[in-house]
Amino acid sequence: MTSLLTRPSSIRSTFAGAVPLRIGVIGYGYWGPNLARNIASHAGTELAAIADLSPKRLAGARAAHPGAWLTADVRELLADPEIDAVVVATPPETHHDLVVRALESGKHVLVEKPLATTIADAEEMVDLARRCGRTLSVDHTFLFTGAVRRMKRYFEAGEVGDVYYYDSTRINLGLFQHQTNVIWDLAPHDISIMLHLIDDPVRSVSAVGARHVDANVENIAYLTLQFEGPMLAHFHVNWLAPTKVRRTIIGGSKKMLVYDDGEASEKLKVYDSGAKLCATDEDIYRTLVEYRTGDVLAPRLEKAEALAVEVAHFENVVRGLEAPLSGGELGLKVVRIIEAAQRSLLSGGHPVEVAA
Amino acid sequence: MTSLLTRPSSIRSTFAGAVPLRIGVIGYGYWGPNLARNIASHAGTELAAIADLSPKRLAGARAAHPGAWLTADVRELLADPEIDAVVVATPPETHHDLVVRALESGKHVLVEKPLATTIADAEEMVDLARRCGRTLSVDHTFLFTGAVRRMKRYFEAGEVGDVYYYDSTRINLGLFQHQTNVIWDLAPHDISIMLHLIDDPVRSVSAVGARHVDANVENIAYLTLQFEGPMLAHFHVNWLAPTKVRRTIIGGSKKMLVYDDGEASEKLKVYDSGAKLCATDEDIYRTLVEYRTGDVLAPRLEKAEALAVEVAHFENVVRGLEAPLSGGELGLKVVRIIEAAQRSLLSGGHPVEVAA
Amino acid sequence: MTSLLTRPSSIRSTFAGAVPLRIGVIGYGYWGPNLARNIASHAGTELAAIADLSPKRLAGARAAHPGAWLTADVRELLADPEIDAVVVATPPETHHDLVVRALESGKHVLVEKPLATTIADAEEMVDLARRCGRTLSVDHTFLFTGAVRRMKRYFEAGEVGDVYYYDSTRINLGLFQHQTNVIWDLAPHDISIMLHLIDDPVRSVSAVGARHVDANVENIAYLTLQFEGPMLAHFHVNWLAPTKVRRTIIGGSKKMLVYDDGEASEKLKVYDSGAKLCATDEDIYRTLVEYRTGDVLAPRLEKAEALAVEVAHFENVVRGLEAPLSGGELGLKVVRIIEAAQRSLLSGGHPVEVAA
Amino acid sequence: MTSLLTRPSSIRSTFAGAVPLRIGVIGYGYWGPNLARNIASHAGTELAAIADLSPKRLAGARAAHPGAWLTADVRELLADPEIDAVVVATPPETHHDLVVRALESGKHVLVEKPLATTIADAEEMVDLARRCGRTLSVDHTFLFTGAVRRMKRYFEAGEVGDVYYYDSTRINLGLFQHQTNVIWDLAPHDISIMLHLIDDPVRSVSAVGARHVDANVENIAYLTLQFEGPMLAHFHVNWLAPTKVRRTIIGGSKKMLVYDDGEASEKLKVYDSGAKLCATDEDIYRTLVEYRTGDVLAPRLEKAEALAVEVAHFENVVRGLEAPLSGGELGLKVVRIIEAAQRSLLSGGHPVEVAA
Repeated sequence: MTSLLTRPSSIRSTFAGAVPLRIGVIGYGYWGPNLARNIASHAGTELAAIADLSPKRLAGARAAHPGAWLTADVRELLADPEIDAVVVATPPETHHDLVVRALESGKHVLVEKPLATTIADAEEMVDLARRCGRTLSVDHTFLFTGAVRRMKRYFEAGEVGDVYYYDSTRINLGLFQHQTNVIWDLAPHDISIMLHLIDDPVRSVSAVGARHVDANVENIAYLTLQFEGPMLAHFHVNWLAPTKVRRTIIGGSKKMLVYDDGEASEKLKVYDSGAKLCATDEDIYRTLVEYRTGDVLAPRLEKAEALAVEVAHFENVVRGLEAPLSGGELGLKVVRIIEAAQRSLLSGGHPVEVAA
Repeated sequence: MTSLLTRPSSIRSTFAGAVPLRIGVIGYGYWGPNLARNIASHAGTELAAIADLSPKRLAGARAAHPGAWLTADVRELLADPEIDAVVVATPPETHHDLVVRALESGKHVLVEKPLATTIADAEEMVDLARRCGRTLSVDHTFLFTGAVRRMKRYFEAGEVGDVYYYDSTRINLGLFQHQTNVIWDLAPHDISIMLHLIDDPVRSVSAVGARHVDANVENIAYLTLQFEGPMLAHFHVNWLAPTKVRRTIIGGSKKMLVYDDGEASEKLKVYDSGAKLCATDEDIYRTLVEYRTGDVLAPRLEKAEALAVEVAHFENVVRGLEAPLSGGELGLKVVRIIEAAQRSLLSGGHPVEVAA
Repeated sequence: MTSLLTRPSSIRSTFAGAVPLRIGVIGYGYWGPNLARNIASHAGTELAAIADLSPKRLAGARAAHPGAWLTADVRELLADPEIDAVVVATPPETHHDLVVRALESGKHVLVEKPLATTIADAEEMVDLARRCGRTLSVDHTFLFTGAVRRMKRYFEAGEVGDVYYYDSTRINLGLFQHQTNVIWDLAPHDISIMLHLIDDPVRSVSAVGARHVDANVENIAYLTLQFEGPMLAHFHVNWLAPTKVRRTIIGGSKKMLVYDDGEASEKLKVYDSGAKLCATDEDIYRTLVEYRTGDVLAPRLEKAEALAVEVAHFENVVRGLEAPLSGGELGLKVVRIIEAAQRSLLSGGHPVEVAA
Repeated sequence: MTSLLTRPSSIRSTFAGAVPLRIGVIGYGYWGPNLARNIASHAGTELAAIADLSPKRLAGARAAHPGAWLTADVRELLADPEIDAVVVATPPETHHDLVVRALESGKHVLVEKPLATTIADAEEMVDLARRCGRTLSVDHTFLFTGAVRRMKRYFEAGEVGDVYYYDSTRINLGLFQHQTNVIWDLAPHDISIMLHLIDDPVRSVSAVGARHVDANVENIAYLTLQFEGPMLAHFHVNWLAPTKVRRTIIGGSKKMLVYDDGEASEKLKVYDSGAKLCATDEDIYRTLVEYRTGDVLAPRLEKAEALAVEVAHFENVVRGLEAPLSGGELGLKVVRIIEAAQRSLLSGGHPVEVAA
């Protein structure tokens, strides 16, 4: 293994007059390689180093990124003054410790979702980042997809109207984690998208779930979020489904959006809603809601890989050129909702208040 | 209108040695015409009479069924000794009164779902039918579709295994009722299917919903049913969706079923499940659930119209030839669950116990 | 049967100051009942009479249309001076004889597709209608669907641009005719739609087909139409397919249309085309055609039943209020193409010229 | 560039007692990298060398395969006695020359489809390989997909019955070649699949096509193949379609197969066919073909990457362990059909005989 750990002489390439952001990737397991690949291929960032405890993974990192410095000791990586920022792509229960050490070492941080596994940890991390004046971003990758970016524009333009409901289904075929349950694994994706699109504060969360495969972790759960107004949000997350479904329906007073990530070419569809009650003479106790239904539009979506957009955004946030779309505060909100869901789950499904 | 109300001399046709069951239809609004048409075309039943308060509807009944006796006065119909059975297809809040009068007049009854609007009413109706020795059936039409009948056979043959979850989505485009909410309107369909397939007693129900169009009735709701064991059932009902979805996923330990009523030709699909935990060496904190996934089967379904099957079944139940699939007891169970859901809704989503 | 054939005293209802067009339906087999129903329900037409040779069918007609005069003798119907127009819904080989007799009796005519089974017959019918000053319309029902009407508007507005190709697939499950082949049965639908949308004259037709079930008639065929310019049209018709597909792709220089009649809610989709050649530096011998791809639009379509629109249109054509969309000339063009296809089929697939 | 061209000292790794097959890849453009990657990752083969004229591509090859010897001069590669076999992934018009030189250098060859651009060239190549006793395989990749392999098993087991028709659609969005037309580009895929599954000799080919974007090459074409018996095969290939469709319908007397490569999870569906004529009393001139329709089956397909299977197969063919599935003879048959299609195209669509 020695040769793998030999540090190459670092040569900074320059581009457009600017020095690329030098990034170290901590954790080269399931998701880290994707982040590393995008950091390596983005002009404004340089994949400087990769740390992982596993020799096997380091060997994989070597093959894919012969130019990066590899180490099994994260302390070495954090101690390197030439590294500007780190990506933390390790299991959730390690996020707090690693991010705190990275921030204290003066690094900017992009950490995989969820930000942390407790509200207290997440709050401390956000607070520390603020005090250190460092960027803390959470890798809520879906925010950077073409579909979510397009939805964001509809919301910003006021085209959705009042949001009536946000209904999300994310059901999967059998990739389990066993140190955490399906809520912690899948719900952060959808909750972060919802929070990104909708500003209303969440009042309470209820959740029910069940354990069928592993006696310790829920493999199916339903979350319901209530807000101050009549809006409802609902999330179905499931590791044990026969088919893969990733669909969100957003019912607004002006438009309804259907975002189906499983669709190859028309991931987002936009419908006029504008339901109006009008009595039918056919039947005195039934009322037809007349949709002012017009055309259905599947808008063109940008095809750039979400992670590529996210890495470029992270660079710009670090450089102070863009406001963070997925900063620690958003990550903290997600953790607050998940933790409330977890408490509701334990209570048998009673609604649990969410701190503002 | 007099001519419409003139009673024709009744001539009983005979067939296969048996006299057809003479049926009166009470209520010729939204659903009554479908029942009337199937009663008229089934060999074992005769559409003897139709009662409705509306002259306009009676005129429609006349055009479609020139041979049936029409009346605006349901008492006349119930008083006719030549009528063996009645179909009650009036608004839910009238079911109790009409069914009680029909049973007391010695008629067998097939009543539209829901059986009644309160548990007390439903219990009284079931009790009365038992005491009178008359058939009380509830028109849970979906039980008679090819897809549900095929699913029933899978369950009876033990092919599904332990049921992990029952997940149902029934979302619609804008046909509202305004004396009742979306739960009372749509959930009886899915709850009756679930109760038909699965014997486990429901322990508690929680429900949340919201009102967006009509200030008095919920147009969206989510119901969660908990059982003694780890099974979960969940129902999404929604009048205000951009697309029509009618899909149920049943996760069992042996098979998973996807019943999509919106599919033209493959409404039911059967998947092997049999998930087994097995560690992957790729990633120590992730576990792949290995499905013993085999072929996906879309079994052939009988194409007979559900109402036609149901009318024939009702005839046989009245004649004592078949046990009721959708009798008053099932209808009562549905009402118990719906009423518990209603109470949970009012409580803000807290789970509510369901009486056994 | 006598009662069925008794002629009721005819009482002409009036509406909006105008006398409804009195129509007789000849042939009450597969399609006739649909026409009869729409004639009966349209305010501007009256279903005056129905003729069919079969007592069983006349009994069906009686049940559905108690007010119409029924006869087994078409001569009686044609001789009735109070009948303004007839619908001929009999087998294709009888069209010529019946239409000629109807026109000679002074009736306006709406005849099922195909207009006739030979070009000579079709020409004679068109010519006779012109000489008699009577309307001769062909029931190419699809022209009156919401999707085809919407496509027509795109063409009329010049939004499709130059048409590159017209590719149609109409494959079915197992409803055979056995006095004719699949080309005569299915291709008139698609050829009439194409001729309705596109003005370019067809130069030649080639067709191949095969017989697998019935030794006398082709159950699958492919037709290719060549035009003066580079446009191609192609039709796949098939009685023996495992699934039902009814899809047309129209490739234009500005827009591409996909018309999928099997889609429940989005039958028509509109794509920007505007392909432009541009070299990629990735690969010197490959060129990416850059679509100026924008949004995909599924325009709202009118939901009126096509036959209802067609019956209203026929009334207006007879009354001189609208120009015929589907007159004898169009029907003749369809027959010319089908007959050329038939000759090509016999020749083993050689292109056959089509008379202008 | 010198460093790129420096030849590393070759060290042969051994596995399971056998020396891996050392393979050189000629052409590292569009498809070459995929072949190189699979050769590198397969245990039984070693990616020994890569030749390409473009320095840019060689730099890409270097990054991806630091261990392979790179050269801009194919002669060097062919002269290397330690290279056992070559993959030729260059433009079609270069295949003949390169393959001949490779065979004459004693190499086994896997060449991209089409084998050659003329029948004469292809015949010479096949003949030369036979004389040299070297393997000549053609990279008809689709033969190695899970779906085609599963179809092959249905055919081998006699479960399809007599083949009535083979209907293929392969339409694409805008990746053009400009030294060849859409037939040469896309049809070899489907023709090779068909020849792999079906033994009947092709008698004649007709083809029509049109040029809309580039005045020199057809971007749309329809091919029809006629056989001795009543079977028909038909291919629609199109570079200029709004959606991507890759669907084949195979109608057999016992089973019908629908192979839809665009489906994410159910690429292959199997239907019972067994149409039987039976008269309906509904309508004397219509006949319903009764399908003995049973369940629809979407069989489980092996998920291995087709190219990985193909590389392993090529190794085994070279080692004499397996008979070639996609040898030069199959490649020659494909070229014979394509060349006949090309001649038919020029003739305006007249059928052209295919040499046996």
